[in-house]
Formats: sequence, C-alpha cells, structure tokens
Amino acid sequence: MEIMTAKNAPLLDAIAGKTPSRTPVWFMRQAGRSLPEYRQVREGIPMLDSCFMPELLAEITLQPVRRHDVDAAILFSDIVVPLKAAGLDIDIVPGKGPVLADPIRTAADVANLPILDHEVTEVQEGIKIINEELTDQQTLIGFAGAPFTLASYLIEGGPSKNHEKTKAMMHGEPELWHALMQRLTPTIIHWLRGQINAGIEAMQLFDSWAGYLTEKDYREFVLPYSTEILESVKDIPRIHFGVGTGEILAAMGSAGSEVMGVDWRVPLDVAAERIRRENGAKVLQGNLDPAILFAGTKALTKEIQRIKDEANRAIAVGDATGHIFNLGHGVMPNTAPDAITEAVSIIHS
Amino acid sequence: MEIMTAKNAPLLDAIAGKTPSRTPVWFMRQAGRSLPEYRQVREGIPMLDSCFMPELLAEITLQPVRRHDVDAAILFSDIVVPLKAAGLDIDIVPGKGPVLADPIRTAADVANLPILDHEVTEVQEGIKIINEELTDQQTLIGFAGAPFTLASYLIEGGPSKNHEKTKAMMHGEPELWHALMQRLTPTIIHWLRGQINAGIEAMQLFDSWAGYLTEKDYREFVLPYSTEILESVKDIPRIHFGVGTGEILAAMGSAGSEVMGVDWRVPLDVAAERIRRENGAKVLQGNLDPAILFAGTKALTKEIQRIKDEANRAIAVGDATGHIFNLGHGVMPNTAPDAITEAVSIIHS
Repeated sequence: MEIMTAKNAPLLDAIAGKTPSRTPVWFMRQAGRSLPEYRQVREGIPMLDSCFMPELLAEITLQPVRRHDVDAAILFSDIVVPLKAAGLDIDIVPGKGPVLADPIRTAADVANLPILDHEVTEVQEGIKIINEELTDQQTLIGFAGAPFTLASYLIEGGPSKNHEKTKAMMHGEPELWHALMQRLTPTIIHWLRGQINAGIEAMQLFDSWAGYLTEKDYREFVLPYSTEILESVKDIPRIHFGVGTGEILAAMGSAGSEVMGVDWRVPLDVAAERIRRENGAKVLQGNLDPAILFAGTKALTKEIQRIKDEANRAIAVGDATGHIFNLGHGVMPNTAPDAITEAVSIIHS
Repeated sequence: MEIMTAKNAPLLDAIAGKTPSRTPVWFMRQAGRSLPEYRQVREGIPMLDSCFMPELLAEITLQPVRRHDVDAAILFSDIVVPLKAAGLDIDIVPGKGPVLADPIRTAADVANLPILDHEVTEVQEGIKIINEELTDQQTLIGFAGAPFTLASYLIEGGPSKNHEKTKAMMHGEPELWHALMQRLTPTIIHWLRGQINAGIEAMQLFDSWAGYLTEKDYREFVLPYSTEILESVKDIPRIHFGVGTGEILAAMGSAGSEVMGVDWRVPLDVAAERIRRENGAKVLQGNLDPAILFAGTKALTKEIQRIKDEANRAIAVGDATGHIFNLGHGVMPNTAPDAITEAVSIIHS
C-alpha cells in the first residue's frame, strides 16, 4: 500500500519552493482532441453533456496522465460549465465554441443572469473518481474561467476575435460592466469551492482573452474580480494564465496567485522580472510554443532546453521561486500524441 | 489652382519631424467593408479581381478619404496580389481569406514558386488615378505584406490561427525556411518599386502575424528579409506594423522604417521607449483599439485624448519624433462609418 502523502508531488513541491524530484510538467488541453482515446469516448456525446458525466469526465481527465506521464491532471471541463449548471441557456457548438441563445447586453439581462448556488455534484463525483486513480506524485488541478473571458462569451453571444461588444460595454457603460462582473464572480467562487470540497489540490484561473485588453483596462475592469476569486480559494495553490499577456503580466500577478502562467511570446526570465517587480518572486508556468510539437525531436529538444535555462536563470537571480513546465497555450487538436509524450520525456530527463 | 507642393501634407510633415498643421490620421482597413459605397462597387466582383481593376481599386482607395477626411489614402490591395501577379494559383475566399491550391512545403515547392519580374500595370494605373484626385495635403501610402506573413499563408495553405506548419518549417527545416524567404523577398521588392514608380509617397510593410513569433525567432528567421525589403525602398518614408508585437517592437524597429506602427495593447510612450533604446527615436503610428469605435462618443473622446497624451509624452522626452494617429489594428467590417468619421474629427480637433 502506498503511503498517503503529497510531500513528493513534483508540482506541489515546485509551488512550495522546494526542489522537485523532477521538473513537473502538464500541458493545457492535454485532455482532448489530440488523443484518439478521447475522440473515441466522446463519440456521439455533446461537449457540455460530457462535462456533467462523472465517469466520462474522470476518464477524459485521466487519459493524458496515463499516456504521457505528466505530473498533473487538469479537470476536464469548460469555462461555461458553472453557468450551464446555474441554469443559463448556453451550448457548445462543435468547431465554434460556447454559443448563447440570448446574449447579455442590458441591465435586465445582467439582473436575470442566474447565479450558481448549489454543488455541481456530477463534477464533484468525477473529481473523486480521478483522485482514486492518481498517485500521490500526481496533482489534480481544478479549473475555472476568469470573469472577463466569461463575460466576453456572454456579451458577444459566442467566441469573438475582437471582443468589440465587450469593450463597448466596458467603456461605454462601465456601471453595467461592473454589475455583470459582480454577478459572475460568486458563481465562479462557488464553482471552485465545490471543486475544492471534492478534492482538487491546486487550481488554474484561465483568463484566455485577457491579453486583448490594455493594462489600464485590465486593472480597472477585470483585476478586482479576479483578485476576489483567487482570494476565495487561497487554501490551495493558485495558477493564473492568459494568452498574449506580456503587457499585463505584472497586473495579472497582482491578483494573488502563487503561480503565473506565461504565454510563449515572453521568455520566462523576462516574464519573471516583470512579475517580481510588482509582486515579489512567484512560480513560473510555461512556456513552450505548442507549434514546436510539430517541428521534430531536434527542435523540440532545443526549445525545451532554452525554456528550462530561462526558468533556471530567473530562479538563480531571485525573480522566480520555481518552474512548472507547460505550453505557452493549449495543445492543438491536430498534435501527434507521440510528440506530446516525447516532450514530457525530454522535460523529465 | 492649387500650388503643387507636398510641404504641408500633415502625414509627411509628421514623418519629417516637423509640426504638422493637424494631427495626421488614417485607419488601417479604412477602405473596405465598413463602407456601404464599398460594398456597392464590389458587388459581384471577387476580391482578387478588384485588386487588378485600375478604376475600381482607385475608387475604393478614395472612398474613405472623401467620406472621413483622413490625411492619407492606403492603396486598396491584398498582401497576396504580387504573388497572384507572379502567376501563383491563389484565391481569396469570402469570409475566409487567401487560399492556396497547393501549399508550399518542400524544396521543390519553393524552387517552383514564381517570382514577380514585371510591372503590375493595373495597380500602377490605379495609383495614377488616385493621385489625380488626392490633394497635396493627402498622402498616398503604398502597401506590401511582409515575407513572414506571406510565408505563413503559403505554408499553411490559408489563414491560420496557430501557424504550426510555418513554425515547424522554421524550426525543423531552417534551410528550407530561409530559401522560401529568399524567394519571396525579390517579389515584394519588385511589387513596392512598381508602386513607387507609379507615384506612392510612403509605404507600409504589414507583418500582420509577426506577433506570433518570439523575439529570438523574429530576429533569426524574419528580420533579415524585412530589413532587405525596407532598405530597397528607402527613397520614400516607410512604416512597419504588426499586431500583438509588444515583445518585438525594438526588433521590428531595427528593420529600418522611419515609422513604427503600434498595436493597441502597448501605450505609445511605453512603445516609444522600447523602440528608441535599440533604434533611436522614430515616429509612432497608432494606436486606438478598433473596438472603441463601438463604445460611443464619450469613451471615444477619452481614449483618443489618452493616446495623444501618450504620444506627446514620448515626443517630449525624446523617445519619439512624431505621431501619426491610427488604429492599433484594422477597422472591423461591422464598424459604423459615422463612428469613424467622428473619430477623425475628434483627432483633428
């Protein structure tokens, strides 16, 4: 029988500022379309349905852990799951993303937006199943979308390249914007507390679209709410990530997470210095360009070494306290699974 | 009769480091789908065909100048026009973008890529028609896509969100990558020299996707070619722009343009300092978020003033030598034309 202790989980050790037994690694979107076993179990099951099926969401969460030997499982879910659970009429359309029957654009829309006030028991059951299979060395990371990214889907009515209606509300009707953020925040907190109750050991707040904002707008319109959410889950390690966030890394860091995820565009040592200046040293997560998984072993090895070197440099000068290896964005669906496994092996070696 | 002199063209004055009679402004994608008169004249005419019709491309180029009172016309064209003119089998699919019948992925593909070696007379005729209507205060800006962005379309076979095949070639087959860039560069130079021969007064090199690269990759795989192109047209003022380029502004600046276009994510004074440290002070272009054109007069006025203040601060401390107002990206097709006209009026006031 294995002794129950999380002491030697590499990911938790890295976050705690200890030297991990190996460089911990997980990949955003490691669970999903890149894996044939995922496509098989999802066949005929709509995305949002799958997020409410305990056995299935557990199976999907565990697939990449079994296959790639990553150090963490990321809960298979979607950022709109808590809104769906709260009763919002929202669906995920294949090849498109979350689509809303009635976009949220008026004060009445905001007032009528349901707030999650019950446990999402299907997800909690899934978390328990996942934890039965994970070893002590493997960490289960919980999952929530940040309120800005959620608000963008709600206001635009679906995925948007330019977020123009979202920014129009932010700048043109700031009171309405803040009302919407205030109404989203308790749902996200409740959703995360439910995951903690069920047994997640760390969490990541995904602010996928935050990189579309100026730093000024991020600080005024988003940061207070992401801070409130991270504060509410401070009993577990917290990771904060968005894409294309080079200009707002320091601001995002000030929301209070122990770990800052870094997009591939910013070298980790440069990112660490920006984050540390405002927030003190944090743990870095990242930041291999997912496209490098298409470039062959030689290029992959070289880029992984570059990133490890940059992280080590940041730690050596005191700008960071640790490093969790990850991509600088999610795994692309057309990635060869063997390239992912190979990357993990190179990172661990 | 108006006296023929370019002395008081605000855009050229700003580039020359003189105080312009008013803040010069033009908007990327000012000619195009946001205007009903554009949709009318394009009706039934495929995009690429329209780029080779002298009267039509002149009309489309002039429409926003007439309507919005902007200080520059940007030649209506597309980055793939020189490739089409060279004989490549490429088309622009509505709602999608440039699509290639046979993507360029092997040494043989690169060797067979046609090189433009003749004048594109239809475009040159269009330029002459445009110049007949423009006043001396209005500047005609020529247009070319940068080789990285062109290469991405060629390798991916069309628009790409992740550029994975492009980066795979760059990192996995660097010699093939450099061969492709070497083959694209003379076509772009020839295309721009033809525009200069016909009468453009300034030019912008659009490296739309350069922001998807790390600085290291940009400097190694892209910069030498963009530098060669800008060097070949140094007899006219040169503008260089890409989206999401905060991390590579200094590197892009070192390609040699007088003007650096700045994405909306980076405040102009911050951008200017980054650019100046490596390159000396340049002229700034930008950087209103196109989404602000949806936010109403009050927000629009406030954001325009913020940007002017940031530019003035950069000029005051010697980090920049001038400012051309523009968006931080292109006009969105669903923008209200009146909002654009209003923005120009606020910028000029």
